[in-house]
Amino acid sequence: MKHFLSFEDVPDIEKLLDQAIKYKSSPLIDKHIGQGKRIGLLFLNPSLRTRLSTQVAAANLGMEAVVFNVDKEGWALEFEEGAVMSGNTVEHIKDAAPVLGKYFDILAIRTFPGLLHQEEDYCEMYIQQFIKYAGVPVLSLESATLHPLQSFADVITIEEQLTKHAFKRKPKVVLTWAPHIKPLPHCVANSFAQWMTGWGKVDLIITHPKGYELSESFTKGATIEYNQEQALRDADFVYVKNWSTFQPYGKLLEAGSEWMLTGDNWKLTNQAKIMHCLPVRRNVELSDEMLDSPFSLVTEQAANRVWSAQAVIAEMLKEFNK
Amino acid sequence: MKHFLSFEDVPDIEKLLDQAIKYKSSPLIDKHIGQGKRIGLLFLNPSLRTRLSTQVAAANLGMEAVVFNVDKEGWALEFEEGAVMSGNTVEHIKDAAPVLGKYFDILAIRTFPGLLHQEEDYCEMYIQQFIKYAGVPVLSLESATLHPLQSFADVITIEEQLTKHAFKRKPKVVLTWAPHIKPLPHCVANSFAQWMTGWGKVDLIITHPKGYELSESFTKGATIEYNQEQALRDADFVYVKNWSTFQPYGKLLEAGSEWMLTGDNWKLTNQAKIMHCLPVRRNVELSDEMLDSPFSLVTEQAANRVWSAQAVIAEMLKEFNK
Amino acid sequence: MKHFLSFEDVPDIEKLLDQAIKYKSSPLIDKHIGQGKRIGLLFLNPSLRTRLSTQVAAANLGMEAVVFNVDKEGWALEFEEGAVMSGNTVEHIKDAAPVLGKYFDILAIRTFPGLLHQEEDYCEMYIQQFIKYAGVPVLSLESATLHPLQSFADVITIEEQLTKHAFKRKPKVVLTWAPHIKPLPHCVANSFAQWMTGWGKVDLIITHPKGYELSESFTKGATIEYNQEQALRDADFVYVKNWSTFQPYGKLLEAGSEWMLTGDNWKLTNQAKIMHCLPVRRNVELSDEMLDSPFSLVTEQAANRVWSAQAVIAEMLKEFNK
Repeated sequence: MKHFLSFEDVPDIEKLLDQAIKYKSSPLIDKHIGQGKRIGLLFLNPSLRTRLSTQVAAANLGMEAVVFNVDKEGWALEFEEGAVMSGNTVEHIKDAAPVLGKYFDILAIRTFPGLLHQEEDYCEMYIQQFIKYAGVPVLSLESATLHPLQSFADVITIEEQLTKHAFKRKPKVVLTWAPHIKPLPHCVANSFAQWMTGWGKVDLIITHPKGYELSESFTKGATIEYNQEQALRDADFVYVKNWSTFQPYGKLLEAGSEWMLTGDNWKLTNQAKIMHCLPVRRNVELSDEMLDSPFSLVTEQAANRVWSAQAVIAEMLKEFNK
Repeated sequence: MKHFLSFEDVPDIEKLLDQAIKYKSSPLIDKHIGQGKRIGLLFLNPSLRTRLSTQVAAANLGMEAVVFNVDKEGWALEFEEGAVMSGNTVEHIKDAAPVLGKYFDILAIRTFPGLLHQEEDYCEMYIQQFIKYAGVPVLSLESATLHPLQSFADVITIEEQLTKHAFKRKPKVVLTWAPHIKPLPHCVANSFAQWMTGWGKVDLIITHPKGYELSESFTKGATIEYNQEQALRDADFVYVKNWSTFQPYGKLLEAGSEWMLTGDNWKLTNQAKIMHCLPVRRNVELSDEMLDSPFSLVTEQAANRVWSAQAVIAEMLKEFNK
Repeated sequence: MKHFLSFEDVPDIEKLLDQAIKYKSSPLIDKHIGQGKRIGLLFLNPSLRTRLSTQVAAANLGMEAVVFNVDKEGWALEFEEGAVMSGNTVEHIKDAAPVLGKYFDILAIRTFPGLLHQEEDYCEMYIQQFIKYAGVPVLSLESATLHPLQSFADVITIEEQLTKHAFKRKPKVVLTWAPHIKPLPHCVANSFAQWMTGWGKVDLIITHPKGYELSESFTKGATIEYNQEQALRDADFVYVKNWSTFQPYGKLLEAGSEWMLTGDNWKLTNQAKIMHCLPVRRNVELSDEMLDSPFSLVTEQAANRVWSAQAVIAEMLKEFNK
């Protein structure tokens, strides 16, 4: 695995999952494999879980991790080819990335979509330019369309439940759209769909109001159900997440406030475990009752971010010994 | 000592003081005791001395310290139970704290009082919620009402003087209110009063203009004297600090500009050592003459922050081996 | 070498250069010499290359590096002697610096000129006050008038070329002024002039529009040529950099947009290598064609910042064993 941007970069999900679970029980067994290697964690957007979990994961592997908040400690980067830089951007990615590639063995990068131009976001312009110009392996800490370390942590979290509880049938996982106060990226939803369908150990149903259809490139293999009640019926896991519209791009529609997950609609499920990637707006996306219930897995998901990152970085480190 | 928020958490002040003084002469004698332990330093407010001294202290104990400026690198946290989060706060403490507790062995947290609602501040809502939800030991790097690592550093600083100079009587320590340009928290004053009276090796006199009475819960055991000249007479130590009113809450009164400590009123003292927790507004709280004099202990106080933090963290680490 | 602010602090440039080149081929040969030493990297201004390269350099020497963004994580410092601090500044350098000197063995500091008062900037008030009050060695990460670690990296970069390619005559190095959208400091230009003339292995020609004359205290020994075409003719290296006027101080003049380096004027050179300290505004200072050409050394320069910093810090560490 050279770069890690998506489920498609994973050669063997079951092997990676085993590795992550091994790390969870013995965090320091591979303390030596990152010795002398340096990972740069670049944030073009704020982050709590992603930053801290990746930093912990790198330390567990003996790597030196250096955090750099580009948006706050640095300056605005330019990504447009041929730009005449007489405006607000101070440095072009073509100049910044090669330098970063000289300082670090692996570059981990968080960017967000602008949510203004679908094509620009969906070609993953930002992170692809880092790959093009940095000359070192690139690890996505969330990009314009995907959040792979989150989704892998979600896989780990579900796998732990499958191990703990006997499931007689393929578990039913529902990704349900939730209300929010502003238009959010599609990353978590796209990525969760990609990993669930790719993993193949669960049935994925996606439910959302009409108009919130996600890109089919990520949802193929999942069932789309516009009726939330229908979707929730007998669900074993409910993943709650807001996203903005894909077509037209990046909007909030009027409808949908009744889509919040509460005890009322949760009752339809098979005592489903409740998932969310955090941060969550309480009593907007999910009710307190849900988040404070013993069925909530949200802390476990966030905790599993460490093992997700650690397994992926370990896999990337192997490339250096080839 | 599980959590450390106040003098009341210290089982034995003399023992803790010995430990701090031992660390000052041999910073690395306990380099091993924090190995494999991770401390998160969370700042909801800016900090210079507190951040750097705690980072150094943790490193001296072999711990990995991770700094996270919640206010700048993260986002606004919600602390209100049952809040409908459709406003500016992005994540509830009930969701953030348990996750942080998964990433760190000890959480060190700096918060400030809002100075708007006395009850909210004085019940230490912020830091108490971290304790309630994080599930790991919490170390206060200053809270709404107290600044315990500062006060312990002040104890160390005074103890060093007591050792160096023979005092024939119980030393007279004066905490004097000082002018400032804006309403400040009571933390340093409350905390200093609590530690001085609790320690018991000095006599504490608190002097301030009428209207600046502090909460009696912290000042009991100290003498209150409204006449600054009277208070300063024969003082051995003068601790200078501004605070806003307690009743009504968080205000600046008109009076008081003549309370600045200068050579003029200092002359009344017994060549008192001059203390301040820094940052200090020169020629507002204290004159240059005072700060630049050989009687000033302000740098020593700040330097002692390292040993204060190191002794406290070492004490907290012992809990892991019980 | 106690402090490092300028070429004048270097006892033997050839020896320092050898050391840097040795570190480039074997980064970790002196991994032990910084053990137990702590360097504080203080930024009063944003930084990417300087921060990361110095952090990497310190780590290569086994030092603990602590980054502190004074402008973002701390508060505004006061530098004026005798100031009545009733305004925006929160802490005086006279109080902050001694404390920082207690926490760190070496203080590395980046400041910028205000570009308002020539005398204040050119007496290096900020960094000199850190030296005066901190009581520990101070390393400049760029000051009001100079950028010594950059210039040393430039020397390394040119030396590598001299080693790689046989030069029959003393190489001709041209420092050319370039257009920019706002008035910039003189640091890089001053410093480059000082190091090139001090090093003595090249001929330095400085070219700029009339009115952009730099301070003679740094340019003496260089040839000033107002005609850019004339200057570029047969150049072996072209260093491109904007700076504001020195007299009157800190202004942008109307003229100069035709001074951008492009394929057209570069053709006059002896296939000159192209240099710039980054960040660079593409198609304002330099054309894409130039920056993307095989003649560009800009990434190498930035990469050499690590070895520049590492050699200098290693030299400073020697003082501790004297």
